[in-house]
Amino acid sequence: MSLLPPALPERPAIAIVGAGALGGYYGARLAQHGHDVHFLLRRDYDAVRKNGLGIRSWNGDFTLPPGQVQAYRSPSDMPKVDLVVVTIKTTSNDQIDALVRPLLKETTAILTLQNGLGNEDHLARLFGPARVLGGIAFVCINRVGPGLIEHTSHGLIRVGSFAGGATDPRPAQIASLFTASHVKCEVVGNLLATRWLKLAWNIPFNGLGAVMDLTTDRLIATPAGESLVRTLITEVIAAAAAEGVTLPPQQTIDDQINPTRGMGPYRSSMQVDRHEGRPLEVEAILGEPLRRAKAKGVAVPLLEAVYAMARAVSA
Amino acid sequence: MSLLPPALPERPAIAIVGAGALGGYYGARLAQHGHDVHFLLRRDYDAVRKNGLGIRSWNGDFTLPPGQVQAYRSPSDMPKVDLVVVTIKTTSNDQIDALVRPLLKETTAILTLQNGLGNEDHLARLFGPARVLGGIAFVCINRVGPGLIEHTSHGLIRVGSFAGGATDPRPAQIASLFTASHVKCEVVGNLLATRWLKLAWNIPFNGLGAVMDLTTDRLIATPAGESLVRTLITEVIAAAAAEGVTLPPQQTIDDQINPTRGMGPYRSSMQVDRHEGRPLEVEAILGEPLRRAKAKGVAVPLLEAVYAMARAVSA
Repeated sequence: MSLLPPALPERPAIAIVGAGALGGYYGARLAQHGHDVHFLLRRDYDAVRKNGLGIRSWNGDFTLPPGQVQAYRSPSDMPKVDLVVVTIKTTSNDQIDALVRPLLKETTAILTLQNGLGNEDHLARLFGPARVLGGIAFVCINRVGPGLIEHTSHGLIRVGSFAGGATDPRPAQIASLFTASHVKCEVVGNLLATRWLKLAWNIPFNGLGAVMDLTTDRLIATPAGESLVRTLITEVIAAAAAEGVTLPPQQTIDDQINPTRGMGPYRSSMQVDRHEGRPLEVEAILGEPLRRAKAKGVAVPLLEAVYAMARAVSA
Repeated sequence: MSLLPPALPERPAIAIVGAGALGGYYGARLAQHGHDVHFLLRRDYDAVRKNGLGIRSWNGDFTLPPGQVQAYRSPSDMPKVDLVVVTIKTTSNDQIDALVRPLLKETTAILTLQNGLGNEDHLARLFGPARVLGGIAFVCINRVGPGLIEHTSHGLIRVGSFAGGATDPRPAQIASLFTASHVKCEVVGNLLATRWLKLAWNIPFNGLGAVMDLTTDRLIATPAGESLVRTLITEVIAAAAAEGVTLPPQQTIDDQINPTRGMGPYRSSMQVDRHEGRPLEVEAILGEPLRRAKAKGVAVPLLEAVYAMARAVSA
């Protein structure tokens, strides 16, 4: 593989690795618009084979009928593809090697849409940095039944190259793929800054939401709750700054809290995981940011408390 | 009132102000053993007048039939008494003046069995320090229905004089009253030390239990949860030390955690209050200890986080 990553073919074969709510929704949008999408499913394989993939979206409902979903139980049954989209929970990161490697050609690109920090680095260690692209999904989405996904607000993806910088043609190609498939998608030059910006929402609303078992609306319904959220975002901003990422404090705080008021009683994915007795994405969303803050000597006492509590409620 | 507090009469008239789970149980034990007990009730008045007061206790079930419960809705209907036992939630401390003052004779003693720090001080400000006695109840007790109380473990009361020191005859008299009524009761010389020791349980198990919505057994079921509890107790020990109270670290921690393992899936009172949508005893159990620690310059970051979270989940 050359250092300069190759462009994707005009109609790439795409694999969605981990078609839960996130992978199911974005993959279904691509398939709905005629792309060659291969879904790797676990829990909902039977339901999707029988009834297809149902999407209830604020941006338009649709169903992919069974005949239009290329669904698989195992990567060994799948074709090699041009683009792997990794959407499994970070709590299953130890399975990525086994799930992704069978899908790779020499030039296959790998895009992670996973939450938290450290996912691109993990893929780069496994498969080499040149393959790796990072995407951050700003979206409210939940699986509400077998093969049934509810998309309640937002939807933007920001995508960037992990190692290729501005010379990498693939982020713009991926942005075009999504944009043509009814998904807003922007290219970003600074992937790390975008990750930290997403953490400014994820850390308070996933973290506090899960450990206190509060939906996003209830978390900011009281002055005490809103103050906790503000304190935590302030710690995230300080941790980001230590990594060279500048997030303007007042605007960053307001931009997390104000749009969340419009989301209604949303259960963040981590709160859902707690309710369903699954492991929480503790390390990617809380642990890795905490470790980076501490490594740089940044005091983040509330993040530290939330991290410890999240570990205690995680299955 | 002389500086030396007068002894209680041999068969004192006793008022229980706030006959919830705690006041209902201890008052019922006194009444069961022939004492002249007057219960001030709010929520369960009708149920108790109709069906009496039912106690399911690991230490022996019993029911006080309606004819044996002197129940009142208002302090103005009650006789003046020799001993007022204050068992209302600290969240209603602003009502104490109105509820207790009508019950006072010149020599009436006031014993608070409330949770947390600062309750004796509050009574002393209202009614003068000489009247005040402090009691700490080490007990697992819940109201499980109208006029029905479940006492699942422990039961010890430790009682001491607020201002009278060893010259105060009343703690020993009260200990005798309770001990003769099937309630283990000990006199303590250092009330403040006993309060801090109780906080070493209440702060982690009420505080974390309420904000994380975990029963006591689940809180210490994982290494991460047990570590949180240990960290918080360590902070309490440091705060106590700054107030001149020495709690030996290892033993204090073990003495909170090990007996709790035998309590089963216990919902602390603060967790119950959260579930029932009531205000939590945030200030007495968390806020006052936090303020005292900070006033002495003791770092208690986890207590600070738990306090903020408790305010956010309190009704």
